[in-house]
Amino acid sequence: MDEADRWKTAAARAALEHVRSGMLVGLGTGSTASHVVRDLGRRLAAGELRDVRGVATSVATERLAREAKIPLVELPASGVDLTIDGMDEVTPTLDAIKGLGGALTREKVVAASSARLVLIGDVRKRVPWLGETAPVPVEVLAFGWRRTVERLRELGAEPALRLRGGEPFVTDTGQWVVDCHVHPHFDAAAFAAAVDAVPGVIAHGLFLGMAERALLGGPDGIEELLRPPVIDGAPA
Amino acid sequence: MDEADRWKTAAARAALEHVRSGMLVGLGTGSTASHVVRDLGRRLAAGELRDVRGVATSVATERLAREAKIPLVELPASGVDLTIDGMDEVTPTLDAIKGLGGALTREKVVAASSARLVLIGDVRKRVPWLGETAPVPVEVLAFGWRRTVERLRELGAEPALRLRGGEPFVTDTGQWVVDCHVHPHFDAAAFAAAVDAVPGVIAHGLFLGMAERALLGGPDGIEELLRPPVIDGAPA
Repeated sequence: MDEADRWKTAAARAALEHVRSGMLVGLGTGSTASHVVRDLGRRLAAGELRDVRGVATSVATERLAREAKIPLVELPASGVDLTIDGMDEVTPTLDAIKGLGGALTREKVVAASSARLVLIGDVRKRVPWLGETAPVPVEVLAFGWRRTVERLRELGAEPALRLRGGEPFVTDTGQWVVDCHVHPHFDAAAFAAAVDAVPGVIAHGLFLGMAERALLGGPDGIEELLRPPVIDGAPA
Repeated sequence: MDEADRWKTAAARAALEHVRSGMLVGLGTGSTASHVVRDLGRRLAAGELRDVRGVATSVATERLAREAKIPLVELPASGVDLTIDGMDEVTPTLDAIKGLGGALTREKVVAASSARLVLIGDVRKRVPWLGETAPVPVEVLAFGWRRTVERLRELGAEPALRLRGGEPFVTDTGQWVVDCHVHPHFDAAAFAAAVDAVPGVIAHGLFLGMAERALLGGPDGIEELLRPPVIDGAPA
């Protein structure tokens, strides 16, 4: 296990401290989140936690959770109690980019349904502004993708269809991903709303104002970022 | 052919007057739009029009267009010149509801790419306010659909998963449709933006500010609704 792997494992372990018996937990996708799934399975097997069920955010996580013997359910109308998931970038105010793994849409459906969202990763994912190191992934319909790419370009992004082995990368939903490189200091909220309104877009990887905390593994242990309180009645 | 069929056929014929040789045309889906496809094929075969190509908004329309020998292309980045499509409701200001046929997402991608959008139908589709007679169809991911339905309910709609033979109706995209009954005089623009932002929503059937004109067949011939001019510099 290399250094980054140790950091991720530590972050996953710290996040699991938020899981209580009886909870319905959203299970994220990707290398860091996979540590959570395996660890949660071990704790259930050891009897340290009881009656925890999961909602898987991808086909890969579903497989992993079955191996770890975590009971899975479909996402209920009431959502989940807690979601633990990785991210590609996170800011000090807990805005995040997710979706380099390609599961962004299901991850977003589950995260948005979640009473609490805990993001995990390593300290290299912490950025001052979104778009610093990662593009914004956008899941798009294969139908009309050329036009959708053009619309994303008109919004100021530099979009590129994600390929795998020379062919379009296909999501669990059977659709495609366009990675949008953005200008530094772009207006993430305005971009998010504009992208949501583009016909042909299924979901984008901007997770704004959704997370409660981020746990980042690093050389000095776990760094915890907490969502700043909404300032009520503060002078403008 | 019953009366309503004659009205639809007349509307389709009137819409075809807007097609010029050399155009790339978005071909709509549904009973009225199918008249356009067949008529366009006849005019091409008769040499009345030349070098017209189509973009099909559904698998069904693709099949119909091939039968009518209309050359089809994928939607290019530059969009199409003209789209002719049916609708379920249209207001005097040309806001529309589409999607009872289930092809709303592809229809929207093509319509939004279109330099000009002409809606066709019969006079029974003309309503003072959207939602008067038709629900707003929303295409949703099958994944997490219970939660998505709950979110739509929270936005004030009365959502119902569309069924066919007791099973969820499946779109060309492989996803599901939720029909949202709305309150009369609901704020269509606000609802549209809110629905666009719900993770799990692929597209909704509100086509606001998109159409250039609507051609409605009826007992007195064709009624033409034109988009009102944007009033520039008018007093508030």
